[in-house]
Amino acid sequence: MAGKVFFSVSMSLDGHIAPESSPADMQAWRRDETTPGLERWQAQWGRLQSWVLEQRFFRENLHLGAGGAEGRDNAILEATFRRTGASIMGKRMFELGEFGWPEDAPFHTPVYVLTHETREPWPRPGGTTFHFVNDGIESALARARDAAGDRDVRIAGGGDTIRQYLRAGLIDEFSIALAPVLFGSGVRLFDGIDADGLAPEQVHVEPSSPVTHLTYALGSRLPRVAADQQPI
Amino acid sequence: MAGKVFFSVSMSLDGHIAPESSPADMQAWRRDETTPGLERWQAQWGRLQSWVLEQRFFRENLHLGAGGAEGRDNAILEATFRRTGASIMGKRMFELGEFGWPEDAPFHTPVYVLTHETREPWPRPGGTTFHFVNDGIESALARARDAAGDRDVRIAGGGDTIRQYLRAGLIDEFSIALAPVLFGSGVRLFDGIDADGLAPEQVHVEPSSPVTHLTYALGSRLPRVAADQQPI
Repeated sequence: MAGKVFFSVSMSLDGHIAPESSPADMQAWRRDETTPGLERWQAQWGRLQSWVLEQRFFRENLHLGAGGAEGRDNAILEATFRRTGASIMGKRMFELGEFGWPEDAPFHTPVYVLTHETREPWPRPGGTTFHFVNDGIESALARARDAAGDRDVRIAGGGDTIRQYLRAGLIDEFSIALAPVLFGSGVRLFDGIDADGLAPEQVHVEPSSPVTHLTYALGSRLPRVAADQQPI
Repeated sequence: MAGKVFFSVSMSLDGHIAPESSPADMQAWRRDETTPGLERWQAQWGRLQSWVLEQRFFRENLHLGAGGAEGRDNAILEATFRRTGASIMGKRMFELGEFGWPEDAPFHTPVYVLTHETREPWPRPGGTTFHFVNDGIESALARARDAAGDRDVRIAGGGDTIRQYLRAGLIDEFSIALAPVLFGSGVRLFDGIDADGLAPEQVHVEPSSPVTHLTYALGSRLPRVAADQQPI
């Protein structure tokens, strides 16, 4: 039996999954420099992800030090990891991660990177192998499904990659950790997503502090205009 | 003891509290005509508000017919009504409502309309009186607080009016009924809200079907850059 295709992200109350970033700030970061733009980016990112940063599972997987919280948030992070048999990500997420992840990248499964480059697979210690896919999102998904077997395929990010899979109708389910922060600008999760095509169904809600975990299924599609709706 | 200042809205998963509307479509609506744009607007609005439309309290208050659901959603709508001692709204919401509300408007309290026009108070059967305020949001709030007494002041909408009060730091609490719909475009609740100023604190979460009721308090403000945040 094939697994599901899902994504799981932290989202701000105003719909962003990452703060606004300028290429110059990101280059400064790689040079280990600080800019006001980068400070702001890091402060916003830290507020969005604060619920993740303190979890034991996350800290161990990223080698951030021993200890950490072990409640429901930790269990949710660990369950998301365990259900994932393969991941798919965009080129930009890979490039940021290549710089930020530890030597043994935190996936421990095959990861398919959408890119225009041709590049040999890149195995990492601990079981992650990055495969570089040049022939489109459906091909990447077919390969990820094969690799995942009974487990699920996670569309890891970023926003543009998630939206490509949403638009193509290839997502079965998604989870949002809705964080009580406002960015004002940044990477919008659902930017430009066809309003009439998708009919998410709320299947699970779990509040924790400070976020709410929301899970939606995407089983059906809407008619272009629902003629039986009441005007108000 | 003075009450709180709050707002309570239904919001789509992509952050909209109303679909995109064109003035031409709205004028067609007033002429009792249909356009494709208006059909789409009504279908989207219907999906956003579907949880409200079937509630007994809402149906009775708007004279939409007898009966209706009487569960938690109905209780939440009624509690929001009962806590409200006065409302504030923008000119555009008033104009749409003036056209759509029944003779005995559904507020049954004083309502302060932000406008540049000078106009005498307009009492309606059933206890609603519309007062037209020309001298700014703080003046409107002072008058609404006086009128509300121990009860709360609701910033009824639309988005622009809510954002003016948010930016001025005058909102104590807000509730969002997060609906599993995507609009793609429309009126964004938090559009352009200063990212660093507001620090909502999640105080209550209650899932129902099909929405999730989320309540946040706005007690504190953030420093411009949180210097103690960890970079990732």
